[in-house]
Amino acid sequence: METPYVLIDLEKLQANIDAMAAFARRHGVKLRPHIKAHKLPQIARRQAAAGAEGITVAKLSEAEVFFAAGFADILVAYPLIGEDKMARVRALLAKGCKLSLLVDSEAGAQQLSRLAAAEEARVYVKVDSGLGRCGLPPGPKLERFVAWLCRLPRLNFRGLLTHAGHAYGCPDPGLVAQVGRKEGEMMVAAADSLRRQGIPVAEVSIGSTPTATWGGQVAGVTEVRPGNYVFYDAVQVALGVATPEQCSLKVVATVVSRPAPGRAIIDAGAKVLALDQGAHGSGAVRGYGLLEQPSWQLVRLSEEHGILEGTDLPNVGDRVSIIPNHACPVLNLAERVWTSTAEQWPVAARGRVW
Amino acid sequence: METPYVLIDLEKLQANIDAMAAFARRHGVKLRPHIKAHKLPQIARRQAAAGAEGITVAKLSEAEVFFAAGFADILVAYPLIGEDKMARVRALLAKGCKLSLLVDSEAGAQQLSRLAAAEEARVYVKVDSGLGRCGLPPGPKLERFVAWLCRLPRLNFRGLLTHAGHAYGCPDPGLVAQVGRKEGEMMVAAADSLRRQGIPVAEVSIGSTPTATWGGQVAGVTEVRPGNYVFYDAVQVALGVATPEQCSLKVVATVVSRPAPGRAIIDAGAKVLALDQGAHGSGAVRGYGLLEQPSWQLVRLSEEHGILEGTDLPNVGDRVSIIPNHACPVLNLAERVWTSTAEQWPVAARGRVW
Repeated sequence: METPYVLIDLEKLQANIDAMAAFARRHGVKLRPHIKAHKLPQIARRQAAAGAEGITVAKLSEAEVFFAAGFADILVAYPLIGEDKMARVRALLAKGCKLSLLVDSEAGAQQLSRLAAAEEARVYVKVDSGLGRCGLPPGPKLERFVAWLCRLPRLNFRGLLTHAGHAYGCPDPGLVAQVGRKEGEMMVAAADSLRRQGIPVAEVSIGSTPTATWGGQVAGVTEVRPGNYVFYDAVQVALGVATPEQCSLKVVATVVSRPAPGRAIIDAGAKVLALDQGAHGSGAVRGYGLLEQPSWQLVRLSEEHGILEGTDLPNVGDRVSIIPNHACPVLNLAERVWTSTAEQWPVAARGRVW
Repeated sequence: METPYVLIDLEKLQANIDAMAAFARRHGVKLRPHIKAHKLPQIARRQAAAGAEGITVAKLSEAEVFFAAGFADILVAYPLIGEDKMARVRALLAKGCKLSLLVDSEAGAQQLSRLAAAEEARVYVKVDSGLGRCGLPPGPKLERFVAWLCRLPRLNFRGLLTHAGHAYGCPDPGLVAQVGRKEGEMMVAAADSLRRQGIPVAEVSIGSTPTATWGGQVAGVTEVRPGNYVFYDAVQVALGVATPEQCSLKVVATVVSRPAPGRAIIDAGAKVLALDQGAHGSGAVRGYGLLEQPSWQLVRLSEEHGILEGTDLPNVGDRVSIIPNHACPVLNLAERVWTSTAEQWPVAARGRVW
């Protein structure tokens, strides 16, 4: 295998998949994993075999790839806007895809309501549980929006959905747990408030790898949507969510230059490892990945170069493995990945952003 | 065209190509553009038509794509290490590719020297002109290395090569000019010193879009290798190298959510715009791209979301255009780009990192 390449340890991968599936079973929540982490039907099939019910995707183009690969129960956890997107929603529904969609705006809800009755889509409303991205915060405005939406024709309101991505900004595991519990409690309270107004809320769906195992324990939460847990990465390690030993994905690179005593250059840069230093700009970690040798630091990335500093550095021609800061973009950059059993998997839903 | 997508303004592109070609002609230097910026044979052909002589690539896989697309004179400006890479070098040479390679280590030079005489490759030695990445700084160590290398069999030493990427860390245009002039002068001095020892130095090659037009004016520099100039981007604007009006590449996105008065969410995130805020970690800019409206700021990127803050924000369904911070990774993330004449170009050398 020529460097740089992405290597997946299938034993560790399976252990991560099994552990999250066991958590979901133990707490009676549905596990609907987000495939944005891996973009690989091969991994989604392992998740399904372990007990996952359906998948989550971010973009419609990812739904199209996974529907073609045999996945029928798909939640697009992203507000779809535009007639071009609606035409593709119709096409997926017509082919028998059990599609769930997300709204957080009147314009978005009205578009979905114009889908024909025969093509009825299940709709989740996005709640902002603190990340400050999409969604409405719990409260009267959210309740008025859901009540209004339920009066629109042809919309099958299923429930509330959130992603507590602000957990990635937490400097210690205790705070991550707190954010996770709060995420679950806030969502259950919002659902109960709607129910008191006579609005049935079938699903209370929460997300994120750091918070899923905390929010998923809150009674009333029905669904968890972690994604990254199949791999984990240096950011999850920094948050105390995983150990380096649990990380199932590595980048393998070759030392191509030793221009100075304290500096080695590897052939994996930002085009392989990505520049992430924490999700949502959280800056959870320093440097650009975890190395086996604690005296080595990947201090800088150019597009094609990784700049390694430290003592006892490897020589030209040596190979090094890096646990990336954020595994998800690494898969998005790679054409293919290698497994520990020397299989080669093309990253089927790589770059599906539309 | 469905959003998010990458749009290239062909008139601006051509003007940028023509201006750099005119500079090279005026100063009598060869222009060997780096294709890492665009990865598109369609653009490299326009560069050749305007007078470029050969191309520069970073990785051997890029050389393979461009050789297949009809480009024969290719400089791989990257230290190639490993027998697998050497086998591919041999294959390219055997097919008639006029390949130039780069070395900065004894191990690298010895590998190249083991290539058969019939497959003789032209070799540049990498000089570190201040970036602190690959290469040897000018001085006795560099001179000893070149003298040693010239005694190896079957190596055709052509000259010295550098990339003054530290220009990206300069806060003002005056400093960029200074770095560029210094880059040229330092390289010419290093070449002259080798010549005084009886070593012929045919090429003095310098790089980078910010410095090419400064270093390229220094007498004795023979070749410039800018790449980004075909597009320019927000980092080049921040450095004073280009105006926003000269930027020929934009990302077009749709507003998908307006969850709060001062916040709009667009459907282009880090998977489209990349997280760069300056080359080589320079942090030259704030935010994640230039918007038409000065009251809007792209303050944060998730993988699929861009978080826009400001006043008079656009509405759900509106489209916005963004000049990315760094155009090169945007092309590396995109499957295809659209041109202002509604052509669709697949990004032929996207993701070629091996």
